[in-house]
Amino acid sequence: MLIARACRFGGRVRSCVVKSLACFSTSSSMAKSKFEYVRSFETDDSCLRNCYIVVRLDGRNFHKFSEQHKFTKPNDSRALGLMSRSAHSVMAEMEDIIIAYGQSDEFSFVFKRTSNLFKRRASKLMTHVASQFSSSYVFHWKEFFREQPLLYPPSFDGRVVLYPSNRNLRDYLSWRQADCHINNLYNTVFWTLVQRGGLTTTQAEDRLKGTLAADKNEILFSEFDINYNNESAIHRKGTVLIWEKRDETVTKRVKLPNEEEKEVPVTRSRRRVQDHHCDIIGDQFWEEHPDILEDDNC
Amino acid sequence: MLIARACRFGGRVRSCVVKSLACFSTSSSMAKSKFEYVRSFETDDSCLRNCYIVVRLDGRNFHKFSEQHKFTKPNDSRALGLMSRSAHSVMAEMEDIIIAYGQSDEFSFVFKRTSNLFKRRASKLMTHVASQFSSSYVFHWKEFFREQPLLYPPSFDGRVVLYPSNRNLRDYLSWRQADCHINNLYNTVFWTLVQRGGLTTTQAEDRLKGTLAADKNEILFSEFDINYNNESAIHRKGTVLIWEKRDETVTKRVKLPNEEEKEVPVTRSRRRVQDHHCDIIGDQFWEEHPDILEDDNC
Amino acid sequence: MLIARACRFGGRVRSCVVKSLACFSTSSSMAKSKFEYVRSFETDDSCLRNCYIVVRLDGRNFHKFSEQHKFTKPNDSRALGLMSRSAHSVMAEMEDIIIAYGQSDEFSFVFKRTSNLFKRRASKLMTHVASQFSSSYVFHWKEFFREQPLLYPPSFDGRVVLYPSNRNLRDYLSWRQADCHINNLYNTVFWTLVQRGGLTTTQAEDRLKGTLAADKNEILFSEFDINYNNESAIHRKGTVLIWEKRDETVTKRVKLPNEEEKEVPVTRSRRRVQDHHCDIIGDQFWEEHPDILEDDNC
Amino acid sequence: MLIARACRFGGRVRSCVVKSLACFSTSSSMAKSKFEYVRSFETDDSCLRNCYIVVRLDGRNFHKFSEQHKFTKPNDSRALGLMSRSAHSVMAEMEDIIIAYGQSDEFSFVFKRTSNLFKRRASKLMTHVASQFSSSYVFHWKEFFREQPLLYPPSFDGRVVLYPSNRNLRDYLSWRQADCHINNLYNTVFWTLVQRGGLTTTQAEDRLKGTLAADKNEILFSEFDINYNNESAIHRKGTVLIWEKRDETVTKRVKLPNEEEKEVPVTRSRRRVQDHHCDIIGDQFWEEHPDILEDDNC
Repeated sequence: MLIARACRFGGRVRSCVVKSLACFSTSSSMAKSKFEYVRSFETDDSCLRNCYIVVRLDGRNFHKFSEQHKFTKPNDSRALGLMSRSAHSVMAEMEDIIIAYGQSDEFSFVFKRTSNLFKRRASKLMTHVASQFSSSYVFHWKEFFREQPLLYPPSFDGRVVLYPSNRNLRDYLSWRQADCHINNLYNTVFWTLVQRGGLTTTQAEDRLKGTLAADKNEILFSEFDINYNNESAIHRKGTVLIWEKRDETVTKRVKLPNEEEKEVPVTRSRRRVQDHHCDIIGDQFWEEHPDILEDDNC
Repeated sequence: MLIARACRFGGRVRSCVVKSLACFSTSSSMAKSKFEYVRSFETDDSCLRNCYIVVRLDGRNFHKFSEQHKFTKPNDSRALGLMSRSAHSVMAEMEDIIIAYGQSDEFSFVFKRTSNLFKRRASKLMTHVASQFSSSYVFHWKEFFREQPLLYPPSFDGRVVLYPSNRNLRDYLSWRQADCHINNLYNTVFWTLVQRGGLTTTQAEDRLKGTLAADKNEILFSEFDINYNNESAIHRKGTVLIWEKRDETVTKRVKLPNEEEKEVPVTRSRRRVQDHHCDIIGDQFWEEHPDILEDDNC
Repeated sequence: MLIARACRFGGRVRSCVVKSLACFSTSSSMAKSKFEYVRSFETDDSCLRNCYIVVRLDGRNFHKFSEQHKFTKPNDSRALGLMSRSAHSVMAEMEDIIIAYGQSDEFSFVFKRTSNLFKRRASKLMTHVASQFSSSYVFHWKEFFREQPLLYPPSFDGRVVLYPSNRNLRDYLSWRQADCHINNLYNTVFWTLVQRGGLTTTQAEDRLKGTLAADKNEILFSEFDINYNNESAIHRKGTVLIWEKRDETVTKRVKLPNEEEKEVPVTRSRRRVQDHHCDIIGDQFWEEHPDILEDDNC
Repeated sequence: MLIARACRFGGRVRSCVVKSLACFSTSSSMAKSKFEYVRSFETDDSCLRNCYIVVRLDGRNFHKFSEQHKFTKPNDSRALGLMSRSAHSVMAEMEDIIIAYGQSDEFSFVFKRTSNLFKRRASKLMTHVASQFSSSYVFHWKEFFREQPLLYPPSFDGRVVLYPSNRNLRDYLSWRQADCHINNLYNTVFWTLVQRGGLTTTQAEDRLKGTLAADKNEILFSEFDINYNNESAIHRKGTVLIWEKRDETVTKRVKLPNEEEKEVPVTRSRRRVQDHHCDIIGDQFWEEHPDILEDDNC
């Protein structure tokens, strides 16, 4: 019997080569080799090459979760901050993510089209994102909800979608941001009618039935003196995370010709994830950040 | 414009039907409908019917994680307890899981072959399991590691494998339990040689090179007076979780004919998840629990 | 440059190993190696193991094809014979097909669950079946349609479906045979009303609207003295093809001890495809041919 | 019982709605509805949108086929003509094919990236192409092989590959044309050495071992006075099929104001498939036919 070196978690052996197991003390039926055929039932789910890989997470039963944890309406800044914090944690783990976009209880992560992470296996990519995001959400909860304890572990489900062109990818992100806009405008008016207008939720719902975006803006403006466009950008636009290079100045000890040492300031460029709350439907954002997308015809 | 009722997390609208968005105050380019074609890029990944669906999670970089969190060698009971606690949390969320098996930093969850949960969509099933397990792991950490703070959020990746027959499924579980056996026997001898025998890890490794299971048992017995079969079952066999019906006696207030109330003991049957640390390779376990597997020819 | 031996169709090289192509006379841009990355876009579509693989072919636009080639109504024996002949050709090419079932312009081929043909790649299996069937259909046309020339090459499309259990597979075959029954009963009455009853096709259609199977049998029996159950089995039941062992006696020359030769009769068992036109929904057929299906729990 | 109108091949009913089947004369077990669940085992294999869909066919066992049908070496013009004729037949059936490329016993068909034929289902696309090609090959055999009868029906297998960008698609086609070049140069020298140089096939093989393209050109030129670049383009470049608009002049009867009729020449534009035997690796071909590829960023 030839067995590989113990190498993980208390020394677990991963891919041991077993030549002879006939004399197992416990039972000859424990021979692992005769069961190994079951590995051939695994299927290859690697993503088509040269496509952007999007992993989108959605909170499960977050309507109930948000009520049980007393989220403020229509938006809870602590909750949005925690979502963003968890997304940072995902991006730090997977540098092939070029952009992430989040709103409400969802977050989308976009892997560069040439990524070869996990050999592009869809299952690995989406479970790793879902797992990292979820454990981070619980880990960082207290930093955002100081007074409100976490009552139970929440869950996010995920999916993988592929986009072959820059246009398709931008349209995907536009779709999510348009969704953010529609929902936030509705929720803003709805909760304003309830909280400041004194309507019941049913009355507010009836009031908004059939209204257009312009109608909702009008209600906010004429009845409550609110200009929707002045509402906080994070609520109207959601959160965009991208990598940005920043120059950092650090002090470094250098040896002088005379063997003495000296501290000198050194500037180095470091890649960091930055939050934005801007429009990503129009061209401006993409013109200002030309490095996010790769050329289509590659 | 026809818009559905706000229904989630601060009232987010999911599947609104948008008839006219031309007059958006912000920008006509925010019309969500023109982006919605991107949904057609999602693919259907539902699992073949009448097959067992296995979701297996594996800890990512847990060798490093276990060292940074000072796991005891060769087995850390706190870590195994936390894994099991997290698996309980997953099973409580998804009652279609008929059995789960865990060892070291991995856990497998088996959905019944007739399950229609999430319409059998592989991505939903595996991300939900990965997410719930991961958030539970962090949530319950303190209950198991009282002295050792969690330094950062850990991650688990997952995969889905389908098994068409009871034989295939049992062979899968046997494969994982045989893996547990091989690794645990190796690790037990290895760390005994190091911790009690005074060998360096390199010396222990050399000593074990080429040894068979019988040799390892012999080393333990003759040099350290250890009978491996008396070692703790949780380490030798891993952890099996199954649903079991238990009769519970509760007191209940009942109204008597004379309108008075009285407390009476009531016995009711409740389904609960139970831990086992027994052999699942042989037939005995399956004969004792005939309800776990469904008939093959259905 | 190292190039493998010419091995196909006028000596085409399949998997040549190209070390240096820099000095191509025609153009350095013809270097094949720089294009070979495109192979990585192929995906693995191998079928889940231990499942029956069914390939079903359906004639494309066969309503029109049957009219243009003057098929007799309601059934054309030449057309059914040609379908069966083509199916024999497919089975002769692929011995892992354990049973085939055809009716009208469709044919289903079932590969044994342990087959490893083409590494179980779905695309290879279904295109090979579709191709062999189609070329055979044209090749053998004249043997069945002596007076009617083939006007243009017909086409069949195909699909792959997996069935994990014997029950599922039998239900699939029962589904196709029940389909055959329903259609053939309808067509028999319909064309009897038209051809012998003198109704127009529209009148026949109206007459049958809302009728049950019993009503249709009654029309045939009371108005045309036809007992449907006496109709030809091939039309009522379709065509089942299976492998059967037959003893064949052949003469063989053997050398006698005195060096003379003599012809002796020798009996040997040979596997041949046989046609059946029997019920495959009930148990009898399967009990009489216990070798077709493999044990479920393997 | 509600049954749809007979509509195919002798009036076969496709999607009949069966309300009650309890009184089937033959057997209540023929109730089709209880078997219809087997349809849910079919999986959706539709191709990712906005990608080029390539179906490539390859002759099965064509080395043997070409010998049995006495193909001339190194190239048989009848065989190449028949391949091209069959590819025309495929393109005529499926107008979404924008370009096809063939060489030796293989042919690739490219569907436009926005095609929605068969709802982009891979199985339908590849089996239809394989079937139409194969039946056409047999149907048209006699037009190309007048003296050589077809001995048995040949078979072609197929596969589907997706390419997200114009660059990827062009590289795929370049890969196949470079393959054509390498094989044809090898075969030309090989068979010249055998047929004109008097070498055995083994000797010719040895002679070519390790030679570069330049060496092969040199052998042809110095020993046999052959300039490879003057060899026939169809052999060096393979066959490219594209749709082209041609003006056709037809005579048409028109009614004059005085009620008389007159024949007048009318010019109309018609789309036809045209053969080319040119380089498709460089840019020239694509610049001359800008309509073949769609814009990447759509």
